[in-house]
Amino acid sequence: MHILVTGAAGMIGRKLSARLVKDGHLNGHKIDRLTLIDVIAPEKPAGFAGTVDFSPSDLSSPGAAAKAVADRPEVIFHLAGVVSGEAETDFEKGYRVNLDGTRTLFEAIRTADFKPKVVFTSSIAVFGTPFPPSIPDDFHLTPLTSYGTQKAICELLLADYTRRGFLDGVGIRLPTICVRPGKPNKAASGFFSSIIREPLAGQEALLPVADTVRHTHASPRAAVGFLVHAAGLTRQQLGTRINLSMPGISCTVGEQIEALRRVAGNKVAARIRRAPDELVQRIVAGWAEQLDAKRARNLGFKAEASFDDIILAHIEDELEGKIAN
Amino acid sequence: MHILVTGAAGMIGRKLSARLVKDGHLNGHKIDRLTLIDVIAPEKPAGFAGTVDFSPSDLSSPGAAAKAVADRPEVIFHLAGVVSGEAETDFEKGYRVNLDGTRTLFEAIRTADFKPKVVFTSSIAVFGTPFPPSIPDDFHLTPLTSYGTQKAICELLLADYTRRGFLDGVGIRLPTICVRPGKPNKAASGFFSSIIREPLAGQEALLPVADTVRHTHASPRAAVGFLVHAAGLTRQQLGTRINLSMPGISCTVGEQIEALRRVAGNKVAARIRRAPDELVQRIVAGWAEQLDAKRARNLGFKAEASFDDIILAHIEDELEGKIAN
Repeated sequence: MHILVTGAAGMIGRKLSARLVKDGHLNGHKIDRLTLIDVIAPEKPAGFAGTVDFSPSDLSSPGAAAKAVADRPEVIFHLAGVVSGEAETDFEKGYRVNLDGTRTLFEAIRTADFKPKVVFTSSIAVFGTPFPPSIPDDFHLTPLTSYGTQKAICELLLADYTRRGFLDGVGIRLPTICVRPGKPNKAASGFFSSIIREPLAGQEALLPVADTVRHTHASPRAAVGFLVHAAGLTRQQLGTRINLSMPGISCTVGEQIEALRRVAGNKVAARIRRAPDELVQRIVAGWAEQLDAKRARNLGFKAEASFDDIILAHIEDELEGKIAN
Repeated sequence: MHILVTGAAGMIGRKLSARLVKDGHLNGHKIDRLTLIDVIAPEKPAGFAGTVDFSPSDLSSPGAAAKAVADRPEVIFHLAGVVSGEAETDFEKGYRVNLDGTRTLFEAIRTADFKPKVVFTSSIAVFGTPFPPSIPDDFHLTPLTSYGTQKAICELLLADYTRRGFLDGVGIRLPTICVRPGKPNKAASGFFSSIIREPLAGQEALLPVADTVRHTHASPRAAVGFLVHAAGLTRQQLGTRINLSMPGISCTVGEQIEALRRVAGNKVAARIRRAPDELVQRIVAGWAEQLDAKRARNLGFKAEASFDDIILAHIEDELEGKIAN
């Protein structure tokens, strides 16, 4: 089986590539070729015996998408995109990469006339306030960012290209990925990860919002699991509504901190310092607190069972089991 | 005030232009210029003292949109598009005209850096089955046609361009327009109009579905009223959710026929002949039966009060008050 991963140099892209290499197969077929593309050159995943092609390319640039699908990969994980903050500050780039890049890929698939499985990573940013306490699967698409708009448009395209028989798509709306490995970034959502990651690494973390703020999280490991599981779903299982909100752990910041205390002790949890930030508070107030994700759960998508498990996954996957005391 | 109408040669475009000329003003401002564009040359509306520019052009062709907005019309009614059937049979044309044409128009507005009011005609085709008995304003966008997909994407673009301050948009989802004047066409929805229009004109009409089929209708006159009313709404009134399902009369085909009998008598109603058509039945089964349209009603959009009124509007507007006996 030949698999194409776009956005392969990103955090999820690298973890997905590593998982595919580790599994060695997908949907019961041996993986013998990986095509990894990104705007920066992706790394070769360790320990893969098959062929790996790298392509540092921007899907929205002329010919790039046609080249990427020329050898007709059976499964395409389309993760490429610019993040929420960049799509908001650079309007043209956001539309070019997130919308035109995706549409160009879909058009390349349509005109090449093969019918790959396409797993598209969408986001809960397709939803915008006002929200009910828990967002149902059939809730209106009312994004309040350009990023969310681009994701919602790509979901609609994916559904239409699937309905028309040009590809076999499934869109998965990821909740906030927590704990993100690496350095703190300036994303407004960054603190959800940093209040766990930094204390576990022996560093202080700043908490800009109240303990009562509720949000939905899934680990990077769970996100990769969603992608792999999505690739195995059939049209019959999905029906006509192929874009799905993924499950996650809905909890308050206070509950995140209590989980950290249970897993790592008081000393670690004490490394969180309250530093209220009105801008972050205002942004976060517009985000979804909870999603039903009933359809996804019924289709077998599995998130962690508790925020404790999310922390434990981070300690296992990123810290080799070690907590800084 | 300078007003641009795209799709000005279409049925609604012509009726809107005539209404604007008759009113002579919009939102309290005298209309002194109309720019009418369409792929075929629009007719000059009778009795207009101001300047009328005609432009037979396709908005998706290079430079056409920039030219259309070069003189900065204060209000733009964007009606242009290919219809549902054509968007389904010609995939590329549907996306080119309905999506690229709209996006090119919005981009021309953004880069010209003025902030017109943009009234966009969307459709209830943005919704797809399975439906609740009455579709709420916050129902999921799950179109099941390429046309509905293109309309839903344009709604999302309109909302994002509005949120970013590039234009001041409002999208109105029209129910089925009934009674459409003119000859019978091959649209699957055509019979909703022809079972009224043909009998009133002394001709036989074929009814391909059961009397129990329920659907939502508004007259061409009401549709034009929605457009004019939408142009007068402020950002404050609309809030962030600027795309609105329009009200209409939800009734069964049997109720349509009873209304025809009340308005025009038994002899006219007897001109409807049952001719079941499985294909039409199957298509219509996927359509919305009823929409709440609560937000639109609260914002002052007015449809007819009964299907009788829809028939009376047709007799008045198209038949000079005369029914064929």
